[in-house]
Amino acid sequence: KMLRRVLCTVLFMGALPSLAEASQGHITVVLLGATGDLAKKYLWQGLFQLYMDEVSSGHSFTFHGAALTALEPGQRLMFDVLKNLACPPDESPNRCAVLKDQFLKLSQYHQLKTAENYTVLNREIEMLLRQEGLKEAGRIFYFSVPPFAYTEIARHINSSCRPPPGAWLRVVLEKPFGHDLESAKQLAAELTSFFREEEMYRVDHYLGKQAVAHILPFRDQNRQFLDPIWNRHHVERVEIVLKETVDAKGRTSFYEQYGVIRDVLQNHLTEALMFLTMELPANVSRAEEVLQCKLQAFQSLRGLEKNSAVLGQYQAYASQVQEELQKAQDYFSTTPTFAGVLIHNDNLRWEGVPFLLTSGKALDERVGYVRVLFKNRAYCTQSETLRDAGHSQCKAKQIIFYIGHGVLNTPAVLVSRNLFRPVMPEDSWREAVGQSDLHIFGQPLSDYYMYSPVKERDAYSVLISNIYHGRKDFFITTENLLASWGFWTPLLDSISHQPLRLYPGGVENQHLLDFEMVSGEVAFTLVEPVELLNPNRLMPNDYRTIQSKFRQSPLVSAWSEDLISQLASDIEKTASRTVARSGQFHMALSGGSSPVVLFQRLTRHHYAFPWKHTHIWLVDERCVPLTDTESNFFSLHNHLLQSVRVPYFNVHPMPVHLNQRLCVEEDRGTELYAKEIMALVANASFDLVLLGVGTDGHTASLFPRSENGLEGAQTVVLTESPVKPHQRMSLSLPLINRARQVFVLVLGKGKHDITTLLSRVGHEPRKWPISGVSPSSGQLVWYVDYEALLG
Amino acid sequence: KMLRRVLCTVLFMGALPSLAEASQGHITVVLLGATGDLAKKYLWQGLFQLYMDEVSSGHSFTFHGAALTALEPGQRLMFDVLKNLACPPDESPNRCAVLKDQFLKLSQYHQLKTAENYTVLNREIEMLLRQEGLKEAGRIFYFSVPPFAYTEIARHINSSCRPPPGAWLRVVLEKPFGHDLESAKQLAAELTSFFREEEMYRVDHYLGKQAVAHILPFRDQNRQFLDPIWNRHHVERVEIVLKETVDAKGRTSFYEQYGVIRDVLQNHLTEALMFLTMELPANVSRAEEVLQCKLQAFQSLRGLEKNSAVLGQYQAYASQVQEELQKAQDYFSTTPTFAGVLIHNDNLRWEGVPFLLTSGKALDERVGYVRVLFKNRAYCTQSETLRDAGHSQCKAKQIIFYIGHGVLNTPAVLVSRNLFRPVMPEDSWREAVGQSDLHIFGQPLSDYYMYSPVKERDAYSVLISNIYHGRKDFFITTENLLASWGFWTPLLDSISHQPLRLYPGGVENQHLLDFEMVSGEVAFTLVEPVELLNPNRLMPNDYRTIQSKFRQSPLVSAWSEDLISQLASDIEKTASRTVARSGQFHMALSGGSSPVVLFQRLTRHHYAFPWKHTHIWLVDERCVPLTDTESNFFSLHNHLLQSVRVPYFNVHPMPVHLNQRLCVEEDRGTELYAKEIMALVANASFDLVLLGVGTDGHTASLFPRSENGLEGAQTVVLTESPVKPHQRMSLSLPLINRARQVFVLVLGKGKHDITTLLSRVGHEPRKWPISGVSPSSGQLVWYVDYEALLG
Repeated sequence: KMLRRVLCTVLFMGALPSLAEASQGHITVVLLGATGDLAKKYLWQGLFQLYMDEVSSGHSFTFHGAALTALEPGQRLMFDVLKNLACPPDESPNRCAVLKDQFLKLSQYHQLKTAENYTVLNREIEMLLRQEGLKEAGRIFYFSVPPFAYTEIARHINSSCRPPPGAWLRVVLEKPFGHDLESAKQLAAELTSFFREEEMYRVDHYLGKQAVAHILPFRDQNRQFLDPIWNRHHVERVEIVLKETVDAKGRTSFYEQYGVIRDVLQNHLTEALMFLTMELPANVSRAEEVLQCKLQAFQSLRGLEKNSAVLGQYQAYASQVQEELQKAQDYFSTTPTFAGVLIHNDNLRWEGVPFLLTSGKALDERVGYVRVLFKNRAYCTQSETLRDAGHSQCKAKQIIFYIGHGVLNTPAVLVSRNLFRPVMPEDSWREAVGQSDLHIFGQPLSDYYMYSPVKERDAYSVLISNIYHGRKDFFITTENLLASWGFWTPLLDSISHQPLRLYPGGVENQHLLDFEMVSGEVAFTLVEPVELLNPNRLMPNDYRTIQSKFRQSPLVSAWSEDLISQLASDIEKTASRTVARSGQFHMALSGGSSPVVLFQRLTRHHYAFPWKHTHIWLVDERCVPLTDTESNFFSLHNHLLQSVRVPYFNVHPMPVHLNQRLCVEEDRGTELYAKEIMALVANASFDLVLLGVGTDGHTASLFPRSENGLEGAQTVVLTESPVKPHQRMSLSLPLINRARQVFVLVLGKGKHDITTLLSRVGHEPRKWPISGVSPSSGQLVWYVDYEALLG
Repeated sequence: KMLRRVLCTVLFMGALPSLAEASQGHITVVLLGATGDLAKKYLWQGLFQLYMDEVSSGHSFTFHGAALTALEPGQRLMFDVLKNLACPPDESPNRCAVLKDQFLKLSQYHQLKTAENYTVLNREIEMLLRQEGLKEAGRIFYFSVPPFAYTEIARHINSSCRPPPGAWLRVVLEKPFGHDLESAKQLAAELTSFFREEEMYRVDHYLGKQAVAHILPFRDQNRQFLDPIWNRHHVERVEIVLKETVDAKGRTSFYEQYGVIRDVLQNHLTEALMFLTMELPANVSRAEEVLQCKLQAFQSLRGLEKNSAVLGQYQAYASQVQEELQKAQDYFSTTPTFAGVLIHNDNLRWEGVPFLLTSGKALDERVGYVRVLFKNRAYCTQSETLRDAGHSQCKAKQIIFYIGHGVLNTPAVLVSRNLFRPVMPEDSWREAVGQSDLHIFGQPLSDYYMYSPVKERDAYSVLISNIYHGRKDFFITTENLLASWGFWTPLLDSISHQPLRLYPGGVENQHLLDFEMVSGEVAFTLVEPVELLNPNRLMPNDYRTIQSKFRQSPLVSAWSEDLISQLASDIEKTASRTVARSGQFHMALSGGSSPVVLFQRLTRHHYAFPWKHTHIWLVDERCVPLTDTESNFFSLHNHLLQSVRVPYFNVHPMPVHLNQRLCVEEDRGTELYAKEIMALVANASFDLVLLGVGTDGHTASLFPRSENGLEGAQTVVLTESPVKPHQRMSLSLPLINRARQVFVLVLGKGKHDITTLLSRVGHEPRKWPISGVSPSSGQLVWYVDYEALLG
């Protein structure tokens, strides 16, 4: 028979399992890179497990290993691997031996190098099926090859190896899936030209870790307990951790390009994070719903900044790189091997809850876990000595998805006994009794309900089973991948030249890598770092704020960060004093990017600011709808108003949009705003006006060589900007000059020229409108940072 | 000399200390109730301490004990007390003996019963001063008498014993200062008719406890450390606790009227709370600034509700009351002897931080403390076993003001060593080394910096010294007192018939009084209470939500609490579905009190609500400014919009206030609103309209026997209400009936009649406008609670 011919390459001959019995159709599995490390270590074992699990499913299988190696040595290499396949402890040895024998007979090696090879493979598959009279169910192509080989293989499969209509194609891809958002997009675009989205199964093997895979089912099955507590009111913090003891030795050629964030955080830890934070779909067994909710969860992540992360590098790394990559002795690597990242979610459920993602090489222990620590909501009335007995509500409450290794050395789900007894699927998780003297996360094991898997399964076995079952929620969709890169890329860009803390490795690290959260950012706890790259730039703290004069008015100058703090606290002082005196505080704010930093400072550090009594006015506005991202008000809304509690009634956007049109004279928006000011602001004298300066000397929306708004009785005017959007509404210079206090904020090197110019010229508002700012009975203060002042 | 005659009543004669040496003037102290318990136990000792401390201050002193007892027995009683005055351990025995001798000579007893007695006392004081040639500095009258005697004594002092112009009068008052807001106001008004505010010193002896008195100075002196962390981002919780082992035996005639909240929480614990939460004045040694800030702190306390407290009563209390107050065997007291209260501050600094106030009699230990527990902001990278050494940042961080008793048995200030080394005034606090094996608040004493007072001072000594120094911030001003009663009285009213948990007393209480926080409320942790008063009312949980039909439309009915939960979750479901479909959700809301509960439910339990994509419209509005408390929008703003993040652009109040006038036809507010709806709401079909029903069958602001808005093309109308404010703006019935979904919420017994009526009548909108609600292509659902449905 033809079948015998096809299978003649099998080294161990014997009775062939009958393929024809299967009525559900035949599945062809092609493992590309069949003799590589991953295949040797996990993939063949996973395929064998699949065969054992599904041999009675009604499907028939053949397994095709492929590599670039020629047929004969390739065969030998591959069957050396197959011979060593292990029988799982939960399988009877007899059955396993029989199945292993069958599995070997169903497996063969192919050299896949040329287009021709792929065509031959396809022909062989078709012939076998025809001869055995089998319907084809589908084909799985598992890419266990380096990413540079992807495109060519994908092209060949697409052109030569697609199954006939009615049968499915599943291609399984292994990371890395790009290096940043740009490269990931490019790779995704290439793959998309060969495969449909539903055909691609991108592997993140963490999704196959039993404890990670159980996060969503756990949340689903324990809704009754978790619904009320799975939110910012109850969760204190979340830790997602993968610690390794090994270092990058021998792998630096890969590692040096990637580093710990790309290697672990962007993928494994982010996926776990998503499972924790996403809204729970009504039906967690529907892959589409799960994927949709997961994708949505990316939307509410707060953007990462430079200070969202602490980074380290183990000391031996530099010399390993020098050696393995043949670099010079003075070569310094900026690749982090340790990272701690603080992530915030800005939705109502998670706002304010810190999610700490940590991973590193050369640490003191190997362990992975996801830990949800709850706030302690109990008060125990009896004294501490009495309290230790029993499972008091005053003990810590936590849920831990223990991924593996560490003191437990098994995947596990742990729930504090004072929280609830979880519902667990009995067929896959069983209650475990740990060593009584073991402490974990600060408590004896006896304080937890602990569950471990009935059958411990390797991540790849789990994933291969899910490929077979078409469970796409165990894999990374293109959208998911790009969302994750979109989230991480800004951090990767901003830290590319960040100093790294050096650490000796292992237990020697001691407290060196401990870090803590400080107003939304993270920093190492020990303040005397051994830094690899010691940046020469002057640190803001090296200078005090300078106070002097500029254009006859007080000048406050400092590095921009210090300047903003000073300005924010001066504004708060003014506000408090004004509210104490008159019960309200009227502040007119400018648009632009400089105030954004100020707004963030105000929202995050000034708790006593009398927002409830503050009125917010606009200094100027672009003639666009208020919901346009170009609108000054829109920016003010996003960066300030959303985070503080200014009453709705006290917010006064400029009426640039009336009768469904923008800044039309006849709609009298300027009059309307002027009237509103007259009605609410005593004497039309704002308590504080915050201005900026353009490089052309404009301020508010008052531009050089335009007379509008520079003098006259009109308090609110329409003006023309030289840049788009041209039409503007602005407070007039005379109105600004009625203010009790005017602060002018000037930031950045780009403003150095105009700053220098302004220090010399007199009162010439037609040339430089800002020079006309001179409050008639109020005070003017300049806030100019060192870069603008000194260049 | 006359002086000798005046002092002839002194029992122990000897050389009189020379009064004339004093150049700062003479101070007369009159202690009313000189032979009472408080005087015996604390006040005389405090006065003696004052004399020892201030004998060289330049002031001279005389001390006058007074009571109703006749001269001779009174003298004997009083001097029995004085003889036993103790010398403080920090005073040299010789000096103390001399001073004690002098103190006795300067002290005398008076019977103060009749108006005549007061006149005589005054004459004697004047005569002494004249004869000794002394200038009068001031007079202190210390009221250590029952409150019923206050008014008469106050009248006598005011009319007969005021010092001459230029000298001050200080009257010192002991609690209780009323029983609730009303009685406190009345008492305050009476006292105010005799004394000026600055003359009154209301004692809360907790303010004299050294640890409590040091809260503000500590916050001031440690600003550099506390400024960044004294807020909701860093504080996990605050506990203010006073536990007693004694019970109320022998004092039930007092206790039965007051209970633990009036006895301890309203005064002592609230004062400590204020010191913690108030904004820090620039200068903490300025009494006025301190008092002002303290008063302001009351403003931001969130109102207490029934479920803000858990209450208990020790089992023996009932029989003690029956016995001491001669009550019948079936008499049940509703006076709590234990309370745990959860307090929230609604300002930006403290929002979300739980403040737990707890006190009780017959507990397992005697102790008082204020404990500020910080969030743990650190992540320790090394494994737990390594972590225990040293003062890791991963250990708990807390600051404790230890008031006294308990395991430490001394006042103390404790600060976790991983927090900061506090600045402490060396003259009054010294670093203490505790027993190394002692654990406090879960940690060994060695984990803290601990300070105890250099001189341990009794609270009354501290207070008497502060009366002498005129430090009014150590006392309770009238405003402060009324603010506190204003805060506590609603709780006291609402719990007057609450069930109390019975507890056996002492260590037997075990976990019985442990409680925990559940969505902003507190509840005992153990759910099987032994309750004293078992209320017969059916609990909401006894019933399931009923689903059936009402007026041919779906009806949801339940106890109001369950009904509101159901409605809130139905609204969320509608919102999520609508946003998923069309990207936005347009909801029109009614005014009134029923929605307020709904709003609270929505803000506290529905984290996934798509507020960002929700537009809020008004169903109707009263013609008052939006900032008027009568305005529907104002209420919506306070109860919903302030707590969720609906973008400014999506909020659509009705334009009842245009051109500085209200609902004037020509201003075309209705047209404006109609246009806004047309522009934003597809097809002018709201996704959800929430309505209520009036007892007269009105809905929205559509009233019976008024045709406006019941039919026709006008979508927004002006109407007249039979009740004030008469003028209204309302969506019309035709517009409401275009909605995709209309929910009608009906709550409370008061709505039973109209509900019954509506179940019978047909479509008669002119008689009952609500009967005209019948969405043409949408769905109508009735949410009617059992009280409205069943009466």
